[in-house]
Amino acid sequence: MTNAPELAPSLTVEQWFNTDEALQLDQLRGRVVVIEAFQMLCPGCVSHGIPQAQRIYESFSSAEVAVLGLHTVFEHHAAMTPVSLAAFLHEYKIRFPVGVDMPQATGMPVTMSAYAMQGTPTLILVDAQGRLHKQWFGAPPDLAVGAEIMRLILGRKNQSAIE
Amino acid sequence: MTNAPELAPSLTVEQWFNTDEALQLDQLRGRVVVIEAFQMLCPGCVSHGIPQAQRIYESFSSAEVAVLGLHTVFEHHAAMTPVSLAAFLHEYKIRFPVGVDMPQATGMPVTMSAYAMQGTPTLILVDAQGRLHKQWFGAPPDLAVGAEIMRLILGRKNQSAIE
Amino acid sequence: MTNAPELAPSLTVEQWFNTDEALQLDQLRGRVVVIEAFQMLCPGCVSHGIPQAQRIYESFSSAEVAVLGLHTVFEHHAAMTPVSLAAFLHEYKIRFPVGVDMPQATGMPVTMSAYAMQGTPTLILVDAQGRLHKQWFGAPPDLAVGAEIMRLILGRKNQSAIE
Amino acid sequence: MTNAPELAPSLTVEQWFNTDEALQLDQLRGRVVVIEAFQMLCPGCVSHGIPQAQRIYESFSSAEVAVLGLHTVFEHHAAMTPVSLAAFLHEYKIRFPVGVDMPQATGMPVTMSAYAMQGTPTLILVDAQGRLHKQWFGAPPDLAVGAEIMRLILGRKNQSAIE
Repeated sequence: MTNAPELAPSLTVEQWFNTDEALQLDQLRGRVVVIEAFQMLCPGCVSHGIPQAQRIYESFSSAEVAVLGLHTVFEHHAAMTPVSLAAFLHEYKIRFPVGVDMPQATGMPVTMSAYAMQGTPTLILVDAQGRLHKQWFGAPPDLAVGAEIMRLILGRKNQSAIE
Repeated sequence: MTNAPELAPSLTVEQWFNTDEALQLDQLRGRVVVIEAFQMLCPGCVSHGIPQAQRIYESFSSAEVAVLGLHTVFEHHAAMTPVSLAAFLHEYKIRFPVGVDMPQATGMPVTMSAYAMQGTPTLILVDAQGRLHKQWFGAPPDLAVGAEIMRLILGRKNQSAIE
Repeated sequence: MTNAPELAPSLTVEQWFNTDEALQLDQLRGRVVVIEAFQMLCPGCVSHGIPQAQRIYESFSSAEVAVLGLHTVFEHHAAMTPVSLAAFLHEYKIRFPVGVDMPQATGMPVTMSAYAMQGTPTLILVDAQGRLHKQWFGAPPDLAVGAEIMRLILGRKNQSAIE
Repeated sequence: MTNAPELAPSLTVEQWFNTDEALQLDQLRGRVVVIEAFQMLCPGCVSHGIPQAQRIYESFSSAEVAVLGLHTVFEHHAAMTPVSLAAFLHEYKIRFPVGVDMPQATGMPVTMSAYAMQGTPTLILVDAQGRLHKQWFGAPPDLAVGAEIMRLILGRKNQSAIE
């Protein structure tokens, strides 16, 4: 599958948690998509990235904003297998869908590589038309994240009004 | 001066700090106005309200968003005089304009009363047309505040586009 | 009154709050004395020093440890008068005795000067024999403070055992 | 090995990290021993217990206080294997020795059971004579922990003075 250049790279996921069916960005058109890329043993992800994703998930309507986790393991692969991730999601009470980024023979997994992420956590915003809007390495301030999500929510509505 | 009902109540201020001239909402048309109503000896204001106002002031362009403090003293009047406020603003490195709400013979000062505030801190958002958009008692989450400010910033631009 | 060189300087206080009678270190012999020197408009005092003093006050038995506040105003004198301090103590729910350090014509007040403090907050430990044990500028870690207080509590008991 | 009743239960450990040789309490006589019992996927351990153990490790002299971690897995066993623990210790920069509590066929591992722990995190203090002094379920305040550690350090010295 190739994306038109302006679209965000598709998600290449080995296994999903917290959802009955595999998810793909093109299914989520019409909603703003927030992707939290993390590793379960990355301290900055646990203390900042994951809690921020949970606040986003609880603050916005799921009809307007879809929050996804992406487990992008690029180190300590044997330590962060899906069975460990399942326990992590349970213990940290993470309710939104989380996909395991598809491993590659060497280095970064497929989706992480497609987005050219610099590390974890990375927060990604995709607009309602499926375009990559913004990508932060680290946990950006909530004020800025809230503002950018609203920019995309309103952009979606304006778009609808025009159509 | 009487406001049309849909406009936010005007500011009745005894003395301004951090600005050479008195400020009034109608001078700020075209910008979103954020008002942090506080008392310098209110613990929740010092630990949450004031730091949030400072984050807002640093996060948004002053061309789009004006941040104002309003010192709404409704208790311990002798303890929170303008001379004490001046030292507080200096020590807490507050750079945005702060007005002292006009005291009344009894109870709440004039502006606090006009907005029917319940206490301090109170965070107020006024849109670029001067209308009261939202008012929170306490310090609301940054995600929600960032989203609402962006809603008003974009509303201003859409408004301009229509005109 | 002159102190023997090994004793902590006595407290020279203009006015006391939260106590019916003036306090002096020699009255507190037999107890460890913790003195939190602060200014009500010093941000580090409000966010770190005062909460630490409150934790000490709540964690140790008053039969073993006496906690005192000392309002050592060395700047913005007109902004931090006793009437403002009274409101501050009320709003921040400070229950332990607080003395206002005696102002001098210039610079630091009397007690602050006698202890050669570098600024506020300063945390001072005086042992049960009235000797200055330790003095920290800033808010030291709770682990270290808890350890040093216990050292003095046990030193008092050992002393009693010897006598 | 059976302990005299007054001694803290011995450590039954499957595998050690951050030490070249297996550790046992009787080797540590003469030092206060602090044991942080944790699970790597327990949120309260990660946010409170482990950071507190690290502060203790950095605050006291290793000649006086030995800090040990004990990985007491009683749930999600497949998710918290030694290979995952090794990565966790690396990512969280934990430098003190950590033992993996010996699993049992059912329920709690051996050492956790011997101490009758209620869950994780649990902080345990053993005195310099090898006796169990105190055991907290959860992360107790640093002030109290610092005080109790100093009580044991000084008890050790008094003991030495007597001998």
